Amino acid sequence: MPNDGRAMSARQFVNDPDEFIPQALEGLRLAHPHLIQVSADPALVLRTPKDGDPLKVALVSGGGSGHEPLHTGFVGLGMLDAAIPGAVFASPTAYQIRAGIKAVDRGRGVLLIVKNYTGDVLNFSIAAELAREENIEVEIVLVDDDLATDGGDEGGPGRRGTAAVVAVEKICGAAAERGASLSELAELGRRVVASSRTMALALRACTHPGQQRPSFDLADDEVEFGVGIHGERGVGQHPFGPASELVPALAQPVVEALGLQRGESVIAIVNGLGSTHALELAVVHRELSAFLEGVGVRIERALVGSYVTALDMQGCSITLVRCDSTLLELWNAPVRTPALAW
Amino acid sequence: MPNDGRAMSARQFVNDPDEFIPQALEGLRLAHPHLIQVSADPALVLRTPKDGDPLKVALVSGGGSGHEPLHTGFVGLGMLDAAIPGAVFASPTAYQIRAGIKAVDRGRGVLLIVKNYTGDVLNFSIAAELAREENIEVEIVLVDDDLATDGGDEGGPGRRGTAAVVAVEKICGAAAERGASLSELAELGRRVVASSRTMALALRACTHPGQQRPSFDLADDEVEFGVGIHGERGVGQHPFGPASELVPALAQPVVEALGLQRGESVIAIVNGLGSTHALELAVVHRELSAFLEGVGVRIERALVGSYVTALDMQGCSITLVRCDSTLLELWNAPVRTPALAW
Repeated sequence: MPNDGRAMSARQFVNDPDEFIPQALEGLRLAHPHLIQVSADPALVLRTPKDGDPLKVALVSGGGSGHEPLHTGFVGLGMLDAAIPGAVFASPTAYQIRAGIKAVDRGRGVLLIVKNYTGDVLNFSIAAELAREENIEVEIVLVDDDLATDGGDEGGPGRRGTAAVVAVEKICGAAAERGASLSELAELGRRVVASSRTMALALRACTHPGQQRPSFDLADDEVEFGVGIHGERGVGQHPFGPASELVPALAQPVVEALGLQRGESVIAIVNGLGSTHALELAVVHRELSAFLEGVGVRIERALVGSYVTALDMQGCSITLVRCDSTLLELWNAPVRTPALAW
Repeated sequence: MPNDGRAMSARQFVNDPDEFIPQALEGLRLAHPHLIQVSADPALVLRTPKDGDPLKVALVSGGGSGHEPLHTGFVGLGMLDAAIPGAVFASPTAYQIRAGIKAVDRGRGVLLIVKNYTGDVLNFSIAAELAREENIEVEIVLVDDDLATDGGDEGGPGRRGTAAVVAVEKICGAAAERGASLSELAELGRRVVASSRTMALALRACTHPGQQRPSFDLADDEVEFGVGIHGERGVGQHPFGPASELVPALAQPVVEALGLQRGESVIAIVNGLGSTHALELAVVHRELSAFLEGVGVRIERALVGSYVTALDMQGCSITLVRCDSTLLELWNAPVRTPALAW
């Protein structure tokens, strides 16, 4: 057969596509036996308990797979106690989530960090109710940072949750290690969400495991603004251009949505969507830094890499988190998870 | 224009391709101002000195860019003191390397960790000579782990250096922090090299910045075994297949070349070559674990991720490092660099 870039991109390291996620979870466990434990049925990734662990509020997140290292790579000291992985781009079940909650509750309650998608919201909410019936205290923090889905119909699903979830998990995870209560963590998490907005763009769509074609097509001279992390189209095609044009077009609406004023500070997350090289993300961060300097906003800390992916999508997202000294100190606290530590 | 996967893959976050590396280095510095310093001319990435840093032997590595996070992402506590980046896939100059050596020497000597490519060997060797003329002690550890290039002509360039360089940098970096002498580090580095072999395969070639097509074509039903990290072809095309077939075909020759016997232990590096998703690498690691268990070889520690890339190549390499308690303890030592720490 002739070489065809679309077909090529479907060639992945995979056995039976139906076993892709279970086998990847087993691989993750084998790579990090000291940090995490994995149960196969229901699928759960749990932090390995250590002697001397503080009796803390447990943090649980999860959602469809395909976004790794999110969430499974963020289980460990200073971040999550459990990640609940669904199938690719599909919510875990309520019973699976309940099992995760029960596995990590230590009597101080459980914070559920949920990206705003209909299936996730439904299943995490049901699981929360089921857990409460068993006298486990549960709070939900809903993450809805994706500007591209802002301003939808009244009563619609609202903004999607994307890379700001990393900030919520990191900041609440640090606070939990320091003994914050469940209600304090829920309030903190909601404050991080309210302080965070994201915009993404794709240079090439992603290809689902076992499929032969990307989930949408783009002309050579187009990029797709406002893409989500599930291979769906964005809100519009813009002309392709140099990073110095694309990055301000991403960052400007984020600055506006947050109402960032000259002199304010942010944490910046420059996130690769799957196939974007570290060199490219570094160039994006350079352009973001220049843009924010121009509007008088200071980057206190930056996270530049592929943390919330959409399978092999080529593209990036920019998340800004308005920060203060409290958030910054928690952001800087130690973390030890498969994706965020040696 | 019609959508064409090959053209799509050339769409990158880049401004002027000639400024790609300098701008990416600036982005790296902006993302990690506390860990590294970057000089633009000559291009150098240097560890930010801290009060109380031990007076240690300095470690310097480098080579062509396009392999990030190698080497620039590995500058910091427990690893490199300087990384010397060339243009994409091109050696840095001898004068540039000399400047790096002079910038980090603290009077205890400098260890140069060099991947075995003609240009790198030439330029690092000249730089070593230039530094010695200025009374700086220098030793070179040559890394040549790539099995695909084994058994070439007598007097030829020999095996290429690929992902084992991460093990050399990590293990020697830890020993340097503990006060090892230059000659001890050189001996240790050579022992790691002798204990390490690598094999790689590509599912899709990489595309150079500004180019429209991958560096080589593969039919839909082929993979390329024995690829290097510079977009060059490998040693042969094999049929595409499930990970459970491809991974043993990669690992078997590595086990044989190292003469690994039942009961021995290794550090395993499952390395993505650029565009390979974390889920796929986890599946590869699962298959590697099963294969090694079958031949009685124990994985003591694993590093699974994209550490030595070939731009956006889709594929992976497997490196095994025969280990003992000394190497293992140094491998486990703390590290704090842009790519390997929060």
